[in-house]
Amino acid sequence: MVKLTLKDGSVIECNDGVKGYEAASQISEGLGRAALAMKLDGELFEINKVIENDAKVEFVTFNDDEGKKVYRHTAAHVLAQAVKRLYPDAILAFGPATDEGFFYDVDVNVSVTPEVLEKLEGEMKKIIKENIPVVRSVVSKEEAKALMTERKEIYKVEHIDELDDGAEISLYTQGEFVDLCAGPHLTSTGKLKAVKLTQCTGAYLHGDSKNKMLQRIYGTAFPKNSELEEYLAMKEEAKKRDHNKLGRELEIFTTVDSIGQGLPVMLPKGTKIIQTLQRWVEDTEEELGWVRTKTPLMAKSDLYKISGHWDHYKEGMFVLGEEEDGKECFALRPMTCPFQYQAYLNRARSYRDLPMRLAETSTLFRNEDSGEMHGLIRVRQFTISEGHLMCTPEQLEDEFRGCLEVAIMMLKTLGLYEDVSYRFSQWDPNNKEKYIGTDADWDEAQGIMQKILDNIGLDYKIGIGEAAFYGPKLDIQIKNVHGKEDTLITIQIDQFNAEKFGMEYVDKDGEKKRPYIIHRTSIGCYERTLALLIEKYAGAFPTWLAPTQVKLLPIGPSQHEYAKEVMKKLKAAGIRCELDDRNEKIGYKIREAQLEKVPYMLVIGEKEMEAGAVAVRSRKNGDMGAVSSDEFLKNILKEIADKAL
Amino acid sequence: MVKLTLKDGSVIECNDGVKGYEAASQISEGLGRAALAMKLDGELFEINKVIENDAKVEFVTFNDDEGKKVYRHTAAHVLAQAVKRLYPDAILAFGPATDEGFFYDVDVNVSVTPEVLEKLEGEMKKIIKENIPVVRSVVSKEEAKALMTERKEIYKVEHIDELDDGAEISLYTQGEFVDLCAGPHLTSTGKLKAVKLTQCTGAYLHGDSKNKMLQRIYGTAFPKNSELEEYLAMKEEAKKRDHNKLGRELEIFTTVDSIGQGLPVMLPKGTKIIQTLQRWVEDTEEELGWVRTKTPLMAKSDLYKISGHWDHYKEGMFVLGEEEDGKECFALRPMTCPFQYQAYLNRARSYRDLPMRLAETSTLFRNEDSGEMHGLIRVRQFTISEGHLMCTPEQLEDEFRGCLEVAIMMLKTLGLYEDVSYRFSQWDPNNKEKYIGTDADWDEAQGIMQKILDNIGLDYKIGIGEAAFYGPKLDIQIKNVHGKEDTLITIQIDQFNAEKFGMEYVDKDGEKKRPYIIHRTSIGCYERTLALLIEKYAGAFPTWLAPTQVKLLPIGPSQHEYAKEVMKKLKAAGIRCELDDRNEKIGYKIREAQLEKVPYMLVIGEKEMEAGAVAVRSRKNGDMGAVSSDEFLKNILKEIADKAL
Repeated sequence: MVKLTLKDGSVIECNDGVKGYEAASQISEGLGRAALAMKLDGELFEINKVIENDAKVEFVTFNDDEGKKVYRHTAAHVLAQAVKRLYPDAILAFGPATDEGFFYDVDVNVSVTPEVLEKLEGEMKKIIKENIPVVRSVVSKEEAKALMTERKEIYKVEHIDELDDGAEISLYTQGEFVDLCAGPHLTSTGKLKAVKLTQCTGAYLHGDSKNKMLQRIYGTAFPKNSELEEYLAMKEEAKKRDHNKLGRELEIFTTVDSIGQGLPVMLPKGTKIIQTLQRWVEDTEEELGWVRTKTPLMAKSDLYKISGHWDHYKEGMFVLGEEEDGKECFALRPMTCPFQYQAYLNRARSYRDLPMRLAETSTLFRNEDSGEMHGLIRVRQFTISEGHLMCTPEQLEDEFRGCLEVAIMMLKTLGLYEDVSYRFSQWDPNNKEKYIGTDADWDEAQGIMQKILDNIGLDYKIGIGEAAFYGPKLDIQIKNVHGKEDTLITIQIDQFNAEKFGMEYVDKDGEKKRPYIIHRTSIGCYERTLALLIEKYAGAFPTWLAPTQVKLLPIGPSQHEYAKEVMKKLKAAGIRCELDDRNEKIGYKIREAQLEKVPYMLVIGEKEMEAGAVAVRSRKNGDMGAVSSDEFLKNILKEIADKAL
Repeated sequence: MVKLTLKDGSVIECNDGVKGYEAASQISEGLGRAALAMKLDGELFEINKVIENDAKVEFVTFNDDEGKKVYRHTAAHVLAQAVKRLYPDAILAFGPATDEGFFYDVDVNVSVTPEVLEKLEGEMKKIIKENIPVVRSVVSKEEAKALMTERKEIYKVEHIDELDDGAEISLYTQGEFVDLCAGPHLTSTGKLKAVKLTQCTGAYLHGDSKNKMLQRIYGTAFPKNSELEEYLAMKEEAKKRDHNKLGRELEIFTTVDSIGQGLPVMLPKGTKIIQTLQRWVEDTEEELGWVRTKTPLMAKSDLYKISGHWDHYKEGMFVLGEEEDGKECFALRPMTCPFQYQAYLNRARSYRDLPMRLAETSTLFRNEDSGEMHGLIRVRQFTISEGHLMCTPEQLEDEFRGCLEVAIMMLKTLGLYEDVSYRFSQWDPNNKEKYIGTDADWDEAQGIMQKILDNIGLDYKIGIGEAAFYGPKLDIQIKNVHGKEDTLITIQIDQFNAEKFGMEYVDKDGEKKRPYIIHRTSIGCYERTLALLIEKYAGAFPTWLAPTQVKLLPIGPSQHEYAKEVMKKLKAAGIRCELDDRNEKIGYKIREAQLEKVPYMLVIGEKEMEAGAVAVRSRKNGDMGAVSSDEFLKNILKEIADKAL
């Protein structure tokens, strides 16, 4: 008998020689069917492995990230097998599972067109139907090399040569096909259900542009056809909503080769949206008792040496020139913190000055690789609604709560709140050199934060190693339209920097004390928020944010004067409008305004002009009939004031 | 007889052997008295020189910059003579006239305290009273060296050694004193009237910190006591208003050693003023048909190579890292132009898109020496209301005029218009390598601009060599409180960049054409404008700009609740107010609010509370009596809406 301890702590006993899937079935028939692999004492194995000793066991299904990887890695092998069946001269490079599917890099003497993808997909389905067992074996380096040399798999041979002498190498064999692979895998090709090859791109061998360009075939796989179809539909929709595509089409932003990657140029429409957001954030924060600073975008290395950025963050910074003896060395700021502290430090402070809430519309710079850059999301320069709040220990919890509340209010107003989750980001005690402070410091800081989060009753997950180098964070995570999670907003508690910068206050008892510092943002980076909004609304922004709110469409030239009058009235009330007085058919004008996703089109013909009216066409509700221009103005002003979604 | 052609073209005839002052007297007795020196065919001479040949003559008086220099240079010699009389061992270095006076660097074995300055000034007055003739003579290098060696003037000897062999050297002798000097000078010490020594600072010999530290004695001189007194009063007032002093005292901005020179930190009050200005500028521009962009603060060298900045402006730029083969090299932008053009270039343009008015609240960077940095005026980073306007040739004059009008409107609103003058800045044809374009290009561009300026009827002076490297400019020059002139606003016409960047539009006739580009700012740099406003208003900003508009001063704790209610009402209407609820005497609270230069203090006692009123104290008009809080709100809202000065 072997004793297996399950995740929940319960123990089951199984017969000697029990295989993984048998043990899973012993727990429940469903689990027996769903289990794709298993973890024994934390190590991942095939589900048909014999469990020889007592162990902690964890069964992995498609619902687990590791289960998806096993499933799709097997699909990658099936793809490779299909390639070799249809193109026996093809040479295989490497083919891992990815977050959303898998790929295989192949060196094949045919251009992998959509037609070829279809043929390959058909062959994969055949292999699945054949339900070929996938068998693991372990061989010596020499055996593996002999096998792959015989099969003319030169990239595999190269890889084997790089391994240590005496290394043991696992092979996975399914029928005539065999691949080097650490595994684990599904136990037969028939366990795969719905597979789809999605595209083929070029990819350099080992990602190095000095090597040969191979073809990278992408695909994905799901246990159910319905899941695959849902995924493909989601991808299709995401492609349409992709801010990096739609944002350019709608003339919200562009990028320019000669300026560089990660440095988007905001066009007038994007600038208007950001200006609208920014003024709203600034005014809201002012109402909540924040005052603003405007601090320099660069500083001498001296400042970053005090803050610790020079030691802990220099690689992420743009440094101007070289640091030399006796010469000033400047660097662009990656964060606002040490700059904003200076407003606190401008004179002696007392408890009467606290809490001091300092906000800034702050531009920051991060030195990242060009290859990492993407649209408005991965950028080298961005502007954030940054803030630092200095307070007494007694004020800490209320002020933290206040910071969280304003962020939540803003996310709700923008319609993004439904897409967020919380992460309590802690340091990585196995990687202490990344952080400042001692174990005791971190225990204390994380303890205080945990107490506050639990008091608030927030539902969060824990992110080990995700803390800032100077303290733990609460991160508000958001999933974009592609399902990718990013940090949008972060709120941190910091008890190190006040000491480093010599910040203090005289308390009621006359003693000098160190304030706590809360680092926080209210709406996050404007660029990232704009990207999320483009994708959320597929470019059809709520009226209060729309760069053009109203388009006036006179039917003919005799209504131009009247249309201009109406526009003047709307503009005087602060409505952003445009007049389309081109000599075009009204249907054409409407279609174009719809493509621009303008919330309201006002069609103006003879009848409307005579009645002092406008025929309202709403982007959302279509034809809304004619109303007086005053009535329309009243309605749209209310919609804007309400920030209606 | 000699014929002298005067400035206005008229000719006078004088007897042979006529001296300058005699010729001046021949024109008018007053000019005879006022003439300090004269120019013969453009060269400056003493006024007692014999005019030997026919010449163009120009008499120089104290009203001319050159006249002031001659006058004050003689005062510098008188100072040196006084130093040698009182401290015979003193060694003289160099002593020129400056814009506002003169100085002399001396190596003297006594600390030049205010008492010493007074003694020296007394001695100067004695020398003036002695009315000693100032006599020019010319000697060989050897003679000059022998003389100065005998007098132990080692710095003069050093200077002589640096001159070419065979050089002729002019000496100026007044009594026992003699100095090397190119001249010209007044003809006797008695021509000086009002002199004043103002201060003494340390100054390295030849301005090089490796040399000996000397003492630099500053002074000034005027032909009338009343003028000197006026000047000294102006300096005293300027010192009080100096933005670099007052701006710090009022907590508008600060600088921090570890951040660096020229990188001011805007504190909450300064940030509020700049935010207020910025929103006003942005909204005004929007009303006038400008749309906004938000472009990156850095770009690859590629962009600057197209724009010409890499060849013509690189020394003024912050470059990130080194330019290496195949590696991206970024630089911070010194101007917005090439970035903003990208919004025009985003798609094909037709005449219907023109004029296209693109504005940006744009942060720029200039790489300047730390020693040059000063307050908010000379900075390494600043934010400007930048804009570029693309138009057809037919639109050029109207659009130029429009740009000028908005600048004038803004200057008038701020109360700065009375301090400005216009400069038409042209290229320097003797220094062509500083510019792009040919002679013909510049003739055309400057011709167009001159025509427009003359059509507008603007009163301007011409600044040779003051153009941008890519085109002529109209500069709006402003004098600060110290009398120093700076460029605040600039409007340029550019016909080069459209070609360099491939900007074009399809005209009505279907032809592709190049647009003209107007580079312009409306309010200039926010930092500089703020500095001018601090000095103009001595920190007592007009109410609409004041960072705190109202201070509520309850007399005792029993009025705190009522004061809070009033504050809530004012805040809801957008008034920036603060409550002083400290346990201090009302007189003390009022004095403090006055020091902070808050426009309105609302004193609230028992009587006011009962009546639902506030006792208004205006910074400008003092006690204004009690009014209801609604009445006060109505009045201040009107004052703010009117942007009353």
